[in-house]
Amino acid sequence: MKEGYKKYIPFKQIDLPDREWPTKVITKAPTWCSVDLRDGNQALIDPMNLEEKLEFFHALCDMGFKEIEIGFPSASETEYEICRELIEGNHIPDDVTIQVLVQAREHLIKKTFEAIKGAKNVIVHFYNSTSTLQRKVVFKKDMDGIIDIAVEGAKLIKELTDNYDGDTNIRFEYSPESFSGTEMDNAVKICEKVMDELECTPENPIILNLPNTVEMCTPNTYADQIEYFIKHLKNRESAIISVHPHNDRGTGVAATELALLAGAERVEGTLFGNGERTGNLDIVTVGLNMYTQGVNPELDFSNLPKLKEIFERCTNMKIGERQPYIGELVFTAFSGSHQDAINKGVKYCKDTNSDYWEVPYIPIDPADVGRQYEPIIRINSQSGKGGAAYVMEHNFGYELPKKMHPEFGALVQVKCDELGRELVPKELFEVFKDNYLEHPQKYVIENSRIFEESENGKEYVHFKGTVVIDGTDKRNTTGVGNGPIDAFFNAIKKIGIDQYKFRSYSQHAISEGSDSQAVSYIELETPENKRIFGVGIDHNVNYSSILGVLNAINRNEAEDK
Amino acid sequence: MKEGYKKYIPFKQIDLPDREWPTKVITKAPTWCSVDLRDGNQALIDPMNLEEKLEFFHALCDMGFKEIEIGFPSASETEYEICRELIEGNHIPDDVTIQVLVQAREHLIKKTFEAIKGAKNVIVHFYNSTSTLQRKVVFKKDMDGIIDIAVEGAKLIKELTDNYDGDTNIRFEYSPESFSGTEMDNAVKICEKVMDELECTPENPIILNLPNTVEMCTPNTYADQIEYFIKHLKNRESAIISVHPHNDRGTGVAATELALLAGAERVEGTLFGNGERTGNLDIVTVGLNMYTQGVNPELDFSNLPKLKEIFERCTNMKIGERQPYIGELVFTAFSGSHQDAINKGVKYCKDTNSDYWEVPYIPIDPADVGRQYEPIIRINSQSGKGGAAYVMEHNFGYELPKKMHPEFGALVQVKCDELGRELVPKELFEVFKDNYLEHPQKYVIENSRIFEESENGKEYVHFKGTVVIDGTDKRNTTGVGNGPIDAFFNAIKKIGIDQYKFRSYSQHAISEGSDSQAVSYIELETPENKRIFGVGIDHNVNYSSILGVLNAINRNEAEDK
Repeated sequence: MKEGYKKYIPFKQIDLPDREWPTKVITKAPTWCSVDLRDGNQALIDPMNLEEKLEFFHALCDMGFKEIEIGFPSASETEYEICRELIEGNHIPDDVTIQVLVQAREHLIKKTFEAIKGAKNVIVHFYNSTSTLQRKVVFKKDMDGIIDIAVEGAKLIKELTDNYDGDTNIRFEYSPESFSGTEMDNAVKICEKVMDELECTPENPIILNLPNTVEMCTPNTYADQIEYFIKHLKNRESAIISVHPHNDRGTGVAATELALLAGAERVEGTLFGNGERTGNLDIVTVGLNMYTQGVNPELDFSNLPKLKEIFERCTNMKIGERQPYIGELVFTAFSGSHQDAINKGVKYCKDTNSDYWEVPYIPIDPADVGRQYEPIIRINSQSGKGGAAYVMEHNFGYELPKKMHPEFGALVQVKCDELGRELVPKELFEVFKDNYLEHPQKYVIENSRIFEESENGKEYVHFKGTVVIDGTDKRNTTGVGNGPIDAFFNAIKKIGIDQYKFRSYSQHAISEGSDSQAVSYIELETPENKRIFGVGIDHNVNYSSILGVLNAINRNEAEDK
Repeated sequence: MKEGYKKYIPFKQIDLPDREWPTKVITKAPTWCSVDLRDGNQALIDPMNLEEKLEFFHALCDMGFKEIEIGFPSASETEYEICRELIEGNHIPDDVTIQVLVQAREHLIKKTFEAIKGAKNVIVHFYNSTSTLQRKVVFKKDMDGIIDIAVEGAKLIKELTDNYDGDTNIRFEYSPESFSGTEMDNAVKICEKVMDELECTPENPIILNLPNTVEMCTPNTYADQIEYFIKHLKNRESAIISVHPHNDRGTGVAATELALLAGAERVEGTLFGNGERTGNLDIVTVGLNMYTQGVNPELDFSNLPKLKEIFERCTNMKIGERQPYIGELVFTAFSGSHQDAINKGVKYCKDTNSDYWEVPYIPIDPADVGRQYEPIIRINSQSGKGGAAYVMEHNFGYELPKKMHPEFGALVQVKCDELGRELVPKELFEVFKDNYLEHPQKYVIENSRIFEESENGKEYVHFKGTVVIDGTDKRNTTGVGNGPIDAFFNAIKKIGIDQYKFRSYSQHAISEGSDSQAVSYIELETPENKRIFGVGIDHNVNYSSILGVLNAINRNEAEDK
């Protein structure tokens, strides 16, 4: 590899004084054209069969696509067949235009016109390759020869359209294929010649589709080309400027967005970026990027998991775990500080009843695309305290007090380090249960009773019961206090458990099954001057606090051993 | 979803008059910093264990990384352990600097300084979050409070460094985390305060790392922020400007490239874009994007398949089929016209002995990244003639004449349509074999002999042999002509096979095993005025032509039935 880079010819950036696109903002959706059934399908190891294509077509219509390229009907029997089935089977909604691709060659154009008979709305999309490189190594023609091919194609298409026998509303699209590898003045020139031949008008505009067939350079250069093209095109108002980006440099989404800033009005792409080699532009990502900027994408992405299922089944392709918006892991935050911030953001939105989505790290509400909050947080050895607390609250309903998060987080981290992997929420709950709900008990309470009695006009709480120590040693005791915890503390002091100090508590109701219980979180200071938490759960609010105190003591005594 | 987009607050673009980055070009590699073992690792469902981390670390060193963030040693035992093992196990080359991340908090900073004892070169990387959103919903602090956190951290780090007991060369990095969500003047201000505290100089510059923690908008806005930041930073020469992009909007690569145009000098990212949620910036893609623009990436990507193997094994992640440069399908062209153009480009480079890679559709020579030509072409029902011919030549050595491509392409297409899927090269060859090499034979030749005899001082070729018709009907015949094909034609005319016309032929040697044979491609015109090809293969050049003629006739007779 050492000097291998020297065999690549750098892209020559065009001169564009006063470029305007970097100051622009995307404020409305372009016209979307899905090329899933053509560019996407042709790049599959196993192209879709007829049933799969029909299912996919309907899914696209349901999302709101109004222009769908359905194939290359002159290229093969399979391609011809889907076109006929769509038309004859009445699969095409009245407001949807099918688009058929064809090279600018006579016999293919003729076959294409046969294929579209009976359709209501059709875009006849013809193309030829115009790049410097293709002219040099593939066609061995100069630009005039390349223009001739396009003009001849246009002439025939015009003729066949003028003599077309039927009610089809035919529109035209021309692509100077490998546009971004073409000298811009040549690209403008060939498009103008095609427009002349087709007699385009503002009322009957042509779609000029400007493919980034192979990404040539950083995405700003594509935007420059689009802006240059638009600024130099004669009769610009008789054309709709369309882009067709690919993703060779991993910048297809960016190239599209910058091209929209530069004035493109229409975008061809596929769901999830299927397409030749590194894929076509991913319309889902560009659409949801608009959505999260407050722009209506004019496509329905509200059930991405369903789209994913259809996509993966029909194409046999697999969507990556980190693909924006739809990847398995994209609503998952492992880092503790991220988890903590997400937690706070969700709470903020809820508490303030905010009209806006103001959650750090998660740029879209997962619910907006049919996904869920639950899997946002996953717990591994890197997660720290915030994530564990989040899962306890959102998956299990336990609202651990903030001061308890570090203690529980540390217990979780030990478990993760021990297993050397992430914990699933169930395992996280096991950690909670083992330490708090079902911790081994040095001290157990039996036959206890808590009751109030008034004395001198003031209410006091009494505790009365048996504390069993180490399973055998039974001590009866009583205590009186301002509340149940105070009473219990006084009761156990009498049997020698007198070195713990009560520090704080919190309590909430928890529903498990039909009846709700009370959970108490008790913070004590130990004889060793450490802080430790205990949890108690019971139908009786008072009793749950006492169990919490006992759990804290039992945990501390176990640690001593 | 209907109006769900309204709950998102659009990004507010900064005002940047006279922006310069869109006119710039990337001409040299930045300093790369791998964060695979930190940001990448923390985002794994199962983080790497110690052995995997060590293997990954060595792979990064072998690629040429000089700065590697190895973790967050104060965060957990696992993290601390890898740091100590790298240092104590002498795993770190002298010219590699390890980087350790720490929040700007006292106890974590102290533990971090313990962790690095004995290392030769260390970057202590501290951060705190500065964005408007995080200040509002997470920290509930104003900017001054946030600046205090950073300054306190810087102060402690400075103190610990000044009093550091050892030979470690310590450098500093500060990240205003969620930089791109921060008001630019605040980002500049906090960085300046940190620089003041650390007493940075041009000789001892700080790394200011400006994360696109969550992508906020189109990638041009990030470039604007970087350019603005650089232009407004006091003591700019005492800082190295680093970027740390993520990929929430699928534009991480683009944001990085545009940030480099805007003046960034250092890039933090991971191999193949591993990292939280949608991932960190993919260094492989950005590096190879430079490479294909003739810029030395200063990293060794010459064996991507090996890197992929290490990556997938250590991380348990799967690289997508369309991921630039490394995905399974990225050197695969299904479209017939693409295949044809690639074929011609490869031939052009070879024929002209070009110093440059001038091949359409494939922006990098697959060999440069340790991949192969062979899988470039795959054949499905969309491929057309070019691809099939390419595979026949490159995988099997049969150079089908150009005029034969449509006929063979059609046979392949029928097979694809029949199977409803792509053909692997072996199956393609089966199509060839079934139609040409082992086609059912109405006519078979037995006991034939071809010899030359001179007559009136001129050499004539004689054919003598038996033609067996339908397995039983044996006819002896002879013919004379200018060459073996002519002689054979004359011979079969005599037994009634007289309506075929010879049109063209081509021939080449083919090596199979130790000995080479001759392959002949014969084009005939049939009695029905159609063109048909036949193929003959034999050690004897003359005999291979005759077999080709016979194959063409046999194929045509079979079609008639």
